[in-house]
Amino acid sequence: MELRRREFTALLLGAAATLSLAGPADAESDPLPSWRPGSAKDAIVKFVHATTDAASPDFVPVAERIATFDQDGTLWVEHPVYTQLVYCFDRVPALVKAKPELAKVEPFRTVLTGDREAIARLGLEPLIKIAAATLTGMDVDMFRDEVAKWIAEARDPRWKRPYTELIYQPQIELLKYLRSVGYRTYIVTGGGQDFVRVYAERVYGVPPEQVIGTAGGVSYQYAADGRPVLMKEPKLLLNDDNAGKPEGIHLMIGRRPRFAFGNSTGGRQILEYTAAGGGVRLAMLVLHDDADREYAYGPAHGLPDTKVGRFPPELYDQAKKDGWIVVSMKDDWRRIFAFE
Amino acid sequence: MELRRREFTALLLGAAATLSLAGPADAESDPLPSWRPGSAKDAIVKFVHATTDAASPDFVPVAERIATFDQDGTLWVEHPVYTQLVYCFDRVPALVKAKPELAKVEPFRTVLTGDREAIARLGLEPLIKIAAATLTGMDVDMFRDEVAKWIAEARDPRWKRPYTELIYQPQIELLKYLRSVGYRTYIVTGGGQDFVRVYAERVYGVPPEQVIGTAGGVSYQYAADGRPVLMKEPKLLLNDDNAGKPEGIHLMIGRRPRFAFGNSTGGRQILEYTAAGGGVRLAMLVLHDDADREYAYGPAHGLPDTKVGRFPPELYDQAKKDGWIVVSMKDDWRRIFAFE
Repeated sequence: MELRRREFTALLLGAAATLSLAGPADAESDPLPSWRPGSAKDAIVKFVHATTDAASPDFVPVAERIATFDQDGTLWVEHPVYTQLVYCFDRVPALVKAKPELAKVEPFRTVLTGDREAIARLGLEPLIKIAAATLTGMDVDMFRDEVAKWIAEARDPRWKRPYTELIYQPQIELLKYLRSVGYRTYIVTGGGQDFVRVYAERVYGVPPEQVIGTAGGVSYQYAADGRPVLMKEPKLLLNDDNAGKPEGIHLMIGRRPRFAFGNSTGGRQILEYTAAGGGVRLAMLVLHDDADREYAYGPAHGLPDTKVGRFPPELYDQAKKDGWIVVSMKDDWRRIFAFE
Repeated sequence: MELRRREFTALLLGAAATLSLAGPADAESDPLPSWRPGSAKDAIVKFVHATTDAASPDFVPVAERIATFDQDGTLWVEHPVYTQLVYCFDRVPALVKAKPELAKVEPFRTVLTGDREAIARLGLEPLIKIAAATLTGMDVDMFRDEVAKWIAEARDPRWKRPYTELIYQPQIELLKYLRSVGYRTYIVTGGGQDFVRVYAERVYGVPPEQVIGTAGGVSYQYAADGRPVLMKEPKLLLNDDNAGKPEGIHLMIGRRPRFAFGNSTGGRQILEYTAAGGGVRLAMLVLHDDADREYAYGPAHGLPDTKVGRFPPELYDQAKKDGWIVVSMKDDWRRIFAFE
């Protein structure tokens, strides 16, 4: 039964490919309606045709069609603070309930006060302490359930919506467009791999095995009832930002991407690595220049400076020099959110 | 064009599935001709029907169909010594040519003598030294090219054939059978991830991103010409054996397998983890009990003891107790190698 099904499917797929390739491209509906006409949109369509049309000299076999997207600031809102950090802060009360002695210990004491300004002033070391305390010490199934519950209930203070609605509609269209022509879409994020995997399939259509992120170690243990569990340990395996992104791609995929999309200095190396692969490749960056509809920060292009998702002038210059496409949120995106 | 193609393909796939499900199963040719009729073969076929027939109460969605295979001793020959270790020994002369001072340093001096008995007596520490020296210190592309060249030229001394022909034909059929019904087949090996990825797609039909193995860190650097490269560092990221296998699966897939196949004590935890997932799962172990056609080692079942791919009586007992299927190479496999 199975062999026949496979052969039959291969036959039908072949027929489908032939038929659809024969169809006139201009008669199709626009797969990227939230992208305004312009050089960014043109670059995407040109890249897709160059790498997926069988007659193209730059044709790329399906197995090699890998597209990677950063998450924070590239697929969803990262300002004023990374969503995962909000999760960590929100977990502190439950943590202190379980370990009351933490209530008087910094930085947990400050987080418990709810004083937003004091919390915003916390440095890197205290933040790492909070992250380690709230993201480790439980098994991976418990963690998944906690994140799933939180992500369903939490609301962004500006839009009063779930964080999973603060995803960029043009990027959702782009993910679908790339998948429709045989690209496997990966998220390659500085955020926590286990965190993003909880909702990535539902929200972005990206399955867990295609989410690469900052990853801590787990240890194989037996629960009291003898059931094997994987405990999340406070041990960093992969810091998936900056050089860690291409390093993580080698570890998890073992192939160089054809397409990479970022939005900040943490995406520089993955864009370099992608672009250096030879043949037709596409490297893109979102520039957040739309304070009305989302946020505006750089400091490239005279935008305000920021600590979250920094896009410095050097990155802008490198993009121009190397032919990476800088996408203006304001000019290139007709619509930012599906709920607009 | 692409949207239409996708919709059309979905339509055709739906039609294909319906048609093939309607076909009578017993009229099909046997997908596992190298497996003799018996309880092991029955367990595989029963597992496939239970998890892939839409009408089955134990039906598993395609996205969750994950099957994992150990490599050494499960997919190909591991005796008298792991193939990757032969590669490391074979690389020593080139290494010493590049760094002549190593010729007088142990354990390189011993390897250079070619004295098989002395080499066989090397302990774990010297072997780790040889592995680190021959598997790291170059960029990932150089390493891939070196392994590809070696694997094409090297010959196993017993069969006088390339190591990639010493793969078990029943397992190749099983991999194909599982893929034909929507399972993604992963290799989860204690061997080096970068090493196995070089030939896994050609030999097993398993693409790089579905090879999980012992992995060292890489570091993102710039070559003299400014090109970014990933250098292989002597830093262990994942020791993908024993408890490291389920830990590696969590890191790289993020889903629990439905099916796991091993052959030694290093596969115990992945089998436990797989079997503990609920619903229908299948855990299998190859028992090497065929000295004539391959090798015989245990020491389970009164077979000779070994240091390579040890299958102790405790593992045999656990398998019997937990319903894991022990596959007798001698009795369950009609043919071991394709060249027989």
